[in-house]
Amino acid sequence: MSDAQGPLAIVAGGGSIPIAVAEAVMRRGRRVVLFPVRGWADPAAVERFPHYWVAVGQGGRLARYAHAEGCRDMVLVGTALRPALTSLRLDWTTLRLLPEIWRAFRGGDDHLLSGVARIFQELGFRVVGAHEVAPEILMPRGNIGTFGPEQRDLADIARGLALLRALGPFDVGQAVVVADNQVLAIEAVDGTDNMLERIAELRERGRVATGKGVGVLIKAPKPTQDRRLDMPAIGPKTVEAAARAGLAGIAVLAESTIVAEPAELARAADAAKLFVCGVGAP
Amino acid sequence: MSDAQGPLAIVAGGGSIPIAVAEAVMRRGRRVVLFPVRGWADPAAVERFPHYWVAVGQGGRLARYAHAEGCRDMVLVGTALRPALTSLRLDWTTLRLLPEIWRAFRGGDDHLLSGVARIFQELGFRVVGAHEVAPEILMPRGNIGTFGPEQRDLADIARGLALLRALGPFDVGQAVVVADNQVLAIEAVDGTDNMLERIAELRERGRVATGKGVGVLIKAPKPTQDRRLDMPAIGPKTVEAAARAGLAGIAVLAESTIVAEPAELARAADAAKLFVCGVGAP
Repeated sequence: MSDAQGPLAIVAGGGSIPIAVAEAVMRRGRRVVLFPVRGWADPAAVERFPHYWVAVGQGGRLARYAHAEGCRDMVLVGTALRPALTSLRLDWTTLRLLPEIWRAFRGGDDHLLSGVARIFQELGFRVVGAHEVAPEILMPRGNIGTFGPEQRDLADIARGLALLRALGPFDVGQAVVVADNQVLAIEAVDGTDNMLERIAELRERGRVATGKGVGVLIKAPKPTQDRRLDMPAIGPKTVEAAARAGLAGIAVLAESTIVAEPAELARAADAAKLFVCGVGAP
Repeated sequence: MSDAQGPLAIVAGGGSIPIAVAEAVMRRGRRVVLFPVRGWADPAAVERFPHYWVAVGQGGRLARYAHAEGCRDMVLVGTALRPALTSLRLDWTTLRLLPEIWRAFRGGDDHLLSGVARIFQELGFRVVGAHEVAPEILMPRGNIGTFGPEQRDLADIARGLALLRALGPFDVGQAVVVADNQVLAIEAVDGTDNMLERIAELRERGRVATGKGVGVLIKAPKPTQDRRLDMPAIGPKTVEAAARAGLAGIAVLAESTIVAEPAELARAADAAKLFVCGVGAP
């Protein structure tokens, strides 16, 4: 059913990762057609690719153009704001699938995304992961940049990974912050950047006992998560937010996290004297 | 070793709960001596009780006055801001216990509190729970106020309690918010009120998919927690914050949560059309 040489449809949410994926796939000599989602994707960034804007709920429009372009494979990538169900303008194709969508909307993001993937599968596409079409975007094992975790950081990383594993069944965040053995924050609907901003604020108000330069942002996919659909991701902005939160570094699960702009990320990490490392599953 | 008729030392942190406990114990005919902690306790509220102000780190001063007042039993109650270790002005008695304090400071709040309790035990006091000296301050089973949880709320409550149980080994927050099966937030060092405020903000920015009047704040003690030391607590302000976050209600573990001002809490719940209920352990 797959057609790894045919053109690839990329349904593009927000952030720089959809663009990084599109570029990596093109470098491999494969044609891409972008479907930037209105309100999420960056208009300037999609300009240089063949693209069709779609709104959330316009599954029919998306399927029509993707079929016309000859796409069989489809990647869903980028940040998405969970839309309010009442704000959706559903087209007829999507309306037909309403019970499916309704089921998808109850529960965590995981659940929502796999519902959306199921819908595109019913519309005749093979939904593949960004890392399957462009494995070079994955975080390698080891450090990016000059710095690496110290002994205390390694203990914080182990605790963070264990906590994320325990959260798995609840389809909640992919990120936590642990500082000198204390859990400072757990991501939920707020997202990683907001969580880091929150730590910066708590620190200003004297609510964080550990000094600056202590603590690690730990990101890992949920154990139950469909990795085709919602890979954790980091980029230079994550490094800057972690620096503002006064952390020592960032640890992500190697081969299971997307790095948007590795060169810029390394530069940002060195500038902020933070480590960024890919660790193995515990 | 206990002396249930002798005067009770109440080391008072912030919020209205230390005052509620002091009043309940006095109503039972027992003398209380308050030790309000500088920067945490409300100066106006402690005025009408015999009291000695103490600073964090002044374990020696506290022990001296408590012994002089004939107190054998001691309650530690109220909100505490985890102090920066470097900001402590330790007295000689406390300095002698420094290795103990140092160990207490590494790790979660649980760990910190049990370290502090151990120190007071070494100084000759019996540390008891607020609920042991004034059981009437505990949340009963069932609803406070007019409203009660509906079917959907009960499902959210069950999910929240299960999540809190899974978080147990990590000595992290005592509260989560679940709305229509989705985990909106998990408390960590931020505290319950900040967490609710955050949900109100996320809702304003369109990041919360569920409408107003859906979702439950669920609070329960950590499974590993020493209930003498860090009982979850709710009061009228919790209700107001939950209302601002657009929730349907609040569920707490019955007999394991302190209610600061039950009459005001019931009035606040009715005014906001929120339920507040005490549920059994799952």
